[in-house]
Amino acid sequence: MALTLYGAARSRASMVLWYLKEKAIPCDFQTLDMQAGEHRQESFLAINPFGKVPALVDDGFQGPDGGPLALAESGAILLHLAENHAAEFGGDPGRAAALRSLSQQWVIYANATLGPAMFQAADRPEDLARQLAVLNGRLTKDTSLLTGAWGPLPWGAADCAVQSYLAYLPMFCSGVDLSPYPAVQASIEATNQRPAYQEAMGSR
Amino acid sequence: MALTLYGAARSRASMVLWYLKEKAIPCDFQTLDMQAGEHRQESFLAINPFGKVPALVDDGFQGPDGGPLALAESGAILLHLAENHAAEFGGDPGRAAALRSLSQQWVIYANATLGPAMFQAADRPEDLARQLAVLNGRLTKDTSLLTGAWGPLPWGAADCAVQSYLAYLPMFCSGVDLSPYPAVQASIEATNQRPAYQEAMGSR
Repeated sequence: MALTLYGAARSRASMVLWYLKEKAIPCDFQTLDMQAGEHRQESFLAINPFGKVPALVDDGFQGPDGGPLALAESGAILLHLAENHAAEFGGDPGRAAALRSLSQQWVIYANATLGPAMFQAADRPEDLARQLAVLNGRLTKDTSLLTGAWGPLPWGAADCAVQSYLAYLPMFCSGVDLSPYPAVQASIEATNQRPAYQEAMGSR
Repeated sequence: MALTLYGAARSRASMVLWYLKEKAIPCDFQTLDMQAGEHRQESFLAINPFGKVPALVDDGFQGPDGGPLALAESGAILLHLAENHAAEFGGDPGRAAALRSLSQQWVIYANATLGPAMFQAADRPEDLARQLAVLNGRLTKDTSLLTGAWGPLPWGAADCAVQSYLAYLPMFCSGVDLSPYPAVQASIEATNQRPAYQEAMGSR
């Protein structure tokens, strides 16, 4: 089985790259030159007709066209890797189903709720503030967002998605005072210290 | 096993309700009075600390706190139902994994890419136009977005997510000319004709 990730500078491909490095999943990385319009060329549109990065090709699975499975959307790529390449949802079937559903929840939350709240922070500061207050109560530096009654769990796709967005907070929302959220601040600091994160950000 | 869906008028709960009715999945429906602040009361914050609807409680699975599994985010709720209550990803394991990953892709696409493009249609019309052109080539009235080399597939979570957003196009993006996208128009019309959709929209 071979994986190929298509990305570009300053794209959400860095989130997927971080996950791949944390889990030591081998993957070929192809950087597209967006300024030169490589994402609009036919060879890439055959992989993702929407012309967006990241996109992943996994030749261990068949796609709808009969060729290797091609996936778009950073969150969907994370979940595919978590399920099929990092065995995040193994073990007891009931527990596995709950962990899968919760991972889907956190990944979608990051992409569809936290991200938009960050981009609209200037217009609607109370929405982001409310989310940060909740996250502050959930985030701890050393365990996963999925840790619970079933015991501690290693860092996974849910953490990757949420922490990737949070790590951009100081840059994208520099007007937001983070001092009321010490656990969020500590989580951002911990993310920045992770060797795999540094490697992924450096090689975007 | 019992399911409870928490929703509110004019919320994304209607998307979940549509799916439940299409698949004939029994579920108790609780409507919160958002204007009276019921989504900020402690009883609901215990279910979704972010205070947003929809939220689903499924007592067939255990959540991180040891109680019944509670899920937020309409997309995550759809995927949980598709996996655990509608058997969308059954059969051959390789095919099942591909269908799950593609469903995650379309659900996340709807929430994180199509939705935002619709809301920003006035400022960035070219982004929505490009997506509608791609969707126009993929949508057919009678089969699922997941239909492919493995044969036709019934309507599912991927279709529910994408078509729920498209159905709002004429209302939210009334300035967008849909005539270049006849398959998108036909899909919206087909959605509006589905009895389960009408029922879900009527009972929000």
